[in-house]
Amino acid sequence: MSETLTPHEELALMRSAIDNFDAALVHILAERFRTTKKVGSFKAEHDLPPSDPAREREQIARLRRLAERSGLDPDFAEKFLEFIITEVIRHHEQARS
Amino acid sequence: MSETLTPHEELALMRSAIDNFDAALVHILAERFRTTKKVGSFKAEHDLPPSDPAREREQIARLRRLAERSGLDPDFAEKFLEFIITEVIRHHEQARS
Repeated sequence: MSETLTPHEELALMRSAIDNFDAALVHILAERFRTTKKVGSFKAEHDLPPSDPAREREQIARLRRLAERSGLDPDFAEKFLEFIITEVIRHHEQARS
Repeated sequence: MSETLTPHEELALMRSAIDNFDAALVHILAERFRTTKKVGSFKAEHDLPPSDPAREREQIARLRRLAERSGLDPDFAEKFLEFIITEVIRHHEQARS
């Protein structure tokens, strides 16, 4: 099978897998931010506090567990969630101003 | 429909959507890093240069286009790709040492 591929072709195949993963990531992130924007306005409407530290702790613990099971570095998963949450906070601040 | 839900229930629904998106993100990231690790050893085996600036420029341009179409901030998509690539470089450095 792969013996018939040149190194260039093999690299191209792996890169097209990476491109597919990236497209999936972008589309899921778009929906995730759409949802957190809804959560932001919902909380404002219902006078709920904008941040919920207990919920955030649960999210981190859960993502670390999922990362371990799927072979992703749990520390990276946690950094990733922080990266996303920073953007969510930026959206909430934009919405308020 | 949603009139029958309490605010607490409605928030819980949105949060479970966010949790599902996060699980999908973690699993796709796990596969993406598995693939970039393969690319790393493949390039080392075939004496290919570890970084490819032209490929990276294409990836950024493509992700920005996908982000625009899916309603994600293209600047965020670019920052996101940089965040991922920083981790990929860390893996390559670990593999070399």
